[in-house]
Amino acid sequence: MASDCIFCKIGSGEMASDILYRDSHCFVIRDIAPKAPVHVLVIPNEHFTFLSSLTPGHGTMVGAMLLAAEEVAVREGISQSGYRLVINQRDDSGQMVDHLHMHVLGGQPLGGMA
Amino acid sequence: MASDCIFCKIGSGEMASDILYRDSHCFVIRDIAPKAPVHVLVIPNEHFTFLSSLTPGHGTMVGAMLLAAEEVAVREGISQSGYRLVINQRDDSGQMVDHLHMHVLGGQPLGGMA
Repeated sequence: MASDCIFCKIGSGEMASDILYRDSHCFVIRDIAPKAPVHVLVIPNEHFTFLSSLTPGHGTMVGAMLLAAEEVAVREGISQSGYRLVINQRDDSGQMVDHLHMHVLGGQPLGGMA
Repeated sequence: MASDCIFCKIGSGEMASDILYRDSHCFVIRDIAPKAPVHVLVIPNEHFTFLSSLTPGHGTMVGAMLLAAEEVAVREGISQSGYRLVINQRDDSGQMVDHLHMHVLGGQPLGGMA
């Protein structure tokens, strides 16, 4: 856990937030500035910023993040209509929080990816 | 392998394509209609269409896909400037090929995610 990280604070309960889903690897919250009717974030419990820190040992965690995304997509009613998963990395992507997270966007036909 | 799947045909070598990267789980090719200066696709060897078919046993494969994305980002010179990973699922997302794949986009400041 990084003491100054908002996602670590939400994950630990130090900062209140509506947790939509949680398992032993990750948790899911709504994006505070939604870009689509459904816009949630899948956040690993473990604090790290960039995929360059990922190791093969993180496979279970990453797999759990994708399973969590699909589970929440089902709950939000967008699993069949479709959704987009996005991970932003560093400046050119618009990454806003320095704790790896995956956006799940859906609920309407989506525009371009970039 | 699905006999009518273009990504399966490329992965098996039945259809020629410039393979930028390959390991035992996935391979990487350039998108034929790039949306950014760098736009490649990370494609699992195993044919499946939707994340709803994913199981916890796929963690190693999914982890390998993210490691492949970062590796290719380094080779393409966008690891430090930044990049975006995108997985599209079903109609609302614009998924074009029914074989799971992850877009890697970068090389300039990217626009919106949706």
